[in-house]
Amino acid sequence: MAAKTDDYMAMKRAGYYSRATIGARHVMDGAVGLILDALDRQPPRHNDIFTMTDMGCADGGTSLGLVGDVLGRVRDHEPDILLRMVYADLPRTDFSTLFQIVHGMTEMESYAGRFSDLHIHASATSFHKQIVPAGTLDLGFSATASHYIADVPCDIPDHLHMVRAEGDVRAAFQAQGARDWENFLMMRARELRSGGVLALFNFGIDENGYWLGDTGGVSMHDTFAELWAEMVKDGTITQAEFEATNFPQVYRTVEEFRAPLDGGPVADAGLRLEHLETRVVPCPFAAAFADHGDAARFARDYVPTLRSWSEPVFLKGLDSTRPTEERAAIVDAFYDRYVARVAEHPDGHAMDYVHCYMICRKA
Amino acid sequence: MAAKTDDYMAMKRAGYYSRATIGARHVMDGAVGLILDALDRQPPRHNDIFTMTDMGCADGGTSLGLVGDVLGRVRDHEPDILLRMVYADLPRTDFSTLFQIVHGMTEMESYAGRFSDLHIHASATSFHKQIVPAGTLDLGFSATASHYIADVPCDIPDHLHMVRAEGDVRAAFQAQGARDWENFLMMRARELRSGGVLALFNFGIDENGYWLGDTGGVSMHDTFAELWAEMVKDGTITQAEFEATNFPQVYRTVEEFRAPLDGGPVADAGLRLEHLETRVVPCPFAAAFADHGDAARFARDYVPTLRSWSEPVFLKGLDSTRPTEERAAIVDAFYDRYVARVAEHPDGHAMDYVHCYMICRKA
Repeated sequence: MAAKTDDYMAMKRAGYYSRATIGARHVMDGAVGLILDALDRQPPRHNDIFTMTDMGCADGGTSLGLVGDVLGRVRDHEPDILLRMVYADLPRTDFSTLFQIVHGMTEMESYAGRFSDLHIHASATSFHKQIVPAGTLDLGFSATASHYIADVPCDIPDHLHMVRAEGDVRAAFQAQGARDWENFLMMRARELRSGGVLALFNFGIDENGYWLGDTGGVSMHDTFAELWAEMVKDGTITQAEFEATNFPQVYRTVEEFRAPLDGGPVADAGLRLEHLETRVVPCPFAAAFADHGDAARFARDYVPTLRSWSEPVFLKGLDSTRPTEERAAIVDAFYDRYVARVAEHPDGHAMDYVHCYMICRKA
Repeated sequence: MAAKTDDYMAMKRAGYYSRATIGARHVMDGAVGLILDALDRQPPRHNDIFTMTDMGCADGGTSLGLVGDVLGRVRDHEPDILLRMVYADLPRTDFSTLFQIVHGMTEMESYAGRFSDLHIHASATSFHKQIVPAGTLDLGFSATASHYIADVPCDIPDHLHMVRAEGDVRAAFQAQGARDWENFLMMRARELRSGGVLALFNFGIDENGYWLGDTGGVSMHDTFAELWAEMVKDGTITQAEFEATNFPQVYRTVEEFRAPLDGGPVADAGLRLEHLETRVVPCPFAAAFADHGDAARFARDYVPTLRSWSEPVFLKGLDSTRPTEERAAIVDAFYDRYVARVAEHPDGHAMDYVHCYMICRKA
């Protein structure tokens, strides 16, 4: 098991995140037009410098195409404007790999070489706080990140994700989600200069009641919970560990996304909603399975896209007195079960992306 | 040997650089007054944001005290000014550790918590290029870094450092050093806004002909070359490897530092010299040895301060067909020899810091 974990960590180091999350790239590439339209409606003519952020950037790989398109459009409007691109994620992020990817020092194609007077910076400040100085931001961008909440308000009994919680637990998560969302928007309102744009592609719950990995087929979050509960039953983990495993996330509804922009401090700070829509972007691995029909291959290709972002949640749920190797082995076994489950009954598994796309502007 | 290297790498990961280079911190703390005086002479009243860079920051630990003092003085002059601090070093830098140190998440005391509206960013752009957008920099700071040249012009026969080279070889290094220095200043002239300050604490050759580790006692660079040559003699490394080992550095004289500011493109770009002095800051490990008198302890404490910055040069000199482990073992053995040499004949060994301190201002 140790060797397997080592292989996995090595994969992760080599831009693994970007490759495993090719679907996240599809989300961004498919919606870049929303940002280009916003730039066309009101071009950034007011200043010498155009500053863009990518909040929750991970290794910077998934947004390479989008950022290149956006900066290109800015230069179409203002050929001499200076460009400042700020990548933000948590301090534990491997910023060295991020810089190497974005500066075109890896096999991934980067936009960086196409622009003169482009300055690329990184920040280790969470999007729950202010990342750039007040009044200096022209475009605040974040995709597939703002569902991470600042604190888990309570354990979720019988499940791992708030999207299946009910009653007081659900209410506690929704309240935390509402606080964090209003705070997120307030931070951005401070950062933006007048006329600046906020482009957010957020995981959420759409008008059909769909969310990530739960669009009419097998529910990904239910599968997570079922397999984790199986490991309680067979004694691999404890009931206490199951209860301590909680995704630190809130999927918000369209109404919840819209609320702070309809009135209150965020609206008072000058942030206006210009566009909102939801979209489902199909899971590329399920789409490939529809072509090749090889269930084992599908299972092998598919589970890493779940693992790329969910693994820390399961590791954190385990008792900290377990040796690191043991925790890694348990999590390996968990994803092995997921692979086996998909290989045996592949139909209906799909991590379709369900996003709420929002374009806001600072008055 | 492998275990030893692992220990060493683990030390390095845990802010080792800052601890091994306590002398570099003495250099900065001792000269911060030069920067505070420059801020007092012409306070930064002209803008909403004060932007400072630390070019060649390594893990950010050595400059924590200086940056805190400088930002404090800025706020003394302008209590409401926003602060932007940009740390710059090469892409391979462990920026995650840097952010954790600077954001006060380690055992090292950081200034970050003392300031509201302070935004800390990082850049992986070399100081041979422009790091921040034109006209946005208030204070460009760099200590003990600008002696790294963009390219090694040729091998240095019979030695490892240009400071002992003669004839054409010396001239080639000096020419590269002059080109890089003029370019460095041109990049900063573009970055600075009018009234902005450039504070550079550069390794150099002082009026007495002293340089780093060569201030009248045993010459550090001669010792490097002698011990490396010994390893050729005993067959550990080849003569070709000795010749391929070259510090990618130029120590410049006071006249060379001053030249671009006396006339030419840098002066034309508006950069003015306000202050220049040289200082020798004593090696803290040699000073401690004068107290404790334990030669073995001195050798053990002292050599890591050399190793912290010189190791990559020796690793790079070795033939790339040698396995990584073998190269690490050779370099381990090299520093073991240095430890043995110091332990046997401790007198005169000292990595005294010889710097040329410059304060410039953009007209």
